[in-house]
Amino acid sequence: MKIVTIGAGNLAFHLTKALQAGGFEIAQVYSRTQASASKLAEELNVPYTTDIGCITGDASLFIISVSDCAIRPLVAKLPSLEGLVVHTAGSVPMNVFSGKLRNYGVLYPLQTFSKSHQIDFSEIPVFLEANTHDNMQILRAVAETISQKVYHASSDERIQLHLAAVFGCNFVNHLYHLSAQLAREAGFDFSVLSALLLETVRKALASESPNEVQTGPAARNDRELIRKHLDMLSSQPEWAEIYGIITKNIIKMKIKE
Amino acid sequence: MKIVTIGAGNLAFHLTKALQAGGFEIAQVYSRTQASASKLAEELNVPYTTDIGCITGDASLFIISVSDCAIRPLVAKLPSLEGLVVHTAGSVPMNVFSGKLRNYGVLYPLQTFSKSHQIDFSEIPVFLEANTHDNMQILRAVAETISQKVYHASSDERIQLHLAAVFGCNFVNHLYHLSAQLAREAGFDFSVLSALLLETVRKALASESPNEVQTGPAARNDRELIRKHLDMLSSQPEWAEIYGIITKNIIKMKIKE
Repeated sequence: MKIVTIGAGNLAFHLTKALQAGGFEIAQVYSRTQASASKLAEELNVPYTTDIGCITGDASLFIISVSDCAIRPLVAKLPSLEGLVVHTAGSVPMNVFSGKLRNYGVLYPLQTFSKSHQIDFSEIPVFLEANTHDNMQILRAVAETISQKVYHASSDERIQLHLAAVFGCNFVNHLYHLSAQLAREAGFDFSVLSALLLETVRKALASESPNEVQTGPAARNDRELIRKHLDMLSSQPEWAEIYGIITKNIIKMKIKE
Repeated sequence: MKIVTIGAGNLAFHLTKALQAGGFEIAQVYSRTQASASKLAEELNVPYTTDIGCITGDASLFIISVSDCAIRPLVAKLPSLEGLVVHTAGSVPMNVFSGKLRNYGVLYPLQTFSKSHQIDFSEIPVFLEANTHDNMQILRAVAETISQKVYHASSDERIQLHLAAVFGCNFVNHLYHLSAQLAREAGFDFSVLSALLLETVRKALASESPNEVQTGPAARNDRELIRKHLDMLSSQPEWAEIYGIITKNIIKMKIKE
């Protein structure tokens, strides 16, 4: 099966690497920008193009891995294609392709990708959607080659999962940032928090549900300590606001339990 | 060196276990409640008491591991002691002991403890404070037996670290809870998020500073997607509030960079 990779970002890199390792032939890489197209093509040892009109038309699968907001304009520029075209975005519904293509779908890996970080693709859950049963079969066969965790998800379910990922990844990372700043203000490097952050995620994942292992001043409604913390944050009103709202939400959750 | 453990919670359990493994003699366990005192004493194979007046007076070190708000009332009830008395709380200043004892300090392990979870104490950063140089020497010798990461921190620095831990552990865990709920609403188990949550913490810890690896709709100021997410959260106004405030703070941070 010949595959064309459209896009040359971190996800395109890891996904295409995994597909190559799984025995698929990557026929070509496309990226709008010369530098990123040639760089990924070199890493994969395959040809590349920067002209969307020149993508290898006879491939069986075209995988669009560009940023969420770039998908719609890119689809508008695609030449007529017989093969299966999928995107990899959490937040973009499958119908972005309808009216334009005959065979289409989505292959959404629920993970955060950075080029420098090695990743075991087989552990990444992959959520599939396709416009026909046959296309789903093709997509499932491809996905199961690279991941042990392949699921079907409708566009609505996928967008919901993507929102879950915003809370669990993007927002969590921002709290890491605030936590690191606070540790630095006390004179310590971010690394003093590493054992705590790792244990926090391990503990949550080992639980039935993270709220069951919730601890801290909000969980025990320690009003005196909460007031003290808010005082300490008085020079950072936005951090105090985040502190206040999450604390309020934890207290409310504990009362409901 | 004879040590008395005051308190029988998760931290008391792990800390006393580590001290025993490090060759210290745990002379006695105290807890107000019979059940927890006897349980921990049995696990450690040491005597226990539930009468604060009957703690072994000739021990060299007394470690108070009770909840933060229980420390002050407990100190008031302590008999006169010659040995070094320390507490293990992040948020309680050392002067909780002043006027009452001659030798005192703090030994604060920056970690979240659960009884069921095995923990490698040597990896846990421990922050020390003592009222005299000699007491600091004693405390440092004890701490270095159980941890490779021993630091000095004043009461103010420690309270600041504790606040960092509230953001990096307690608040992060609450976001895990919201993330899990959103995944469940899409029909998926919390476990589909595990690869993402683990990679998020690994990526942050491998970075110079977590803000450098921040991604997602807020980081790229994708207003359309942010609006869509807020729409999806309209039935959960408090989650929408958390979404809005963290998003606003990420956007602002990115503009400053």
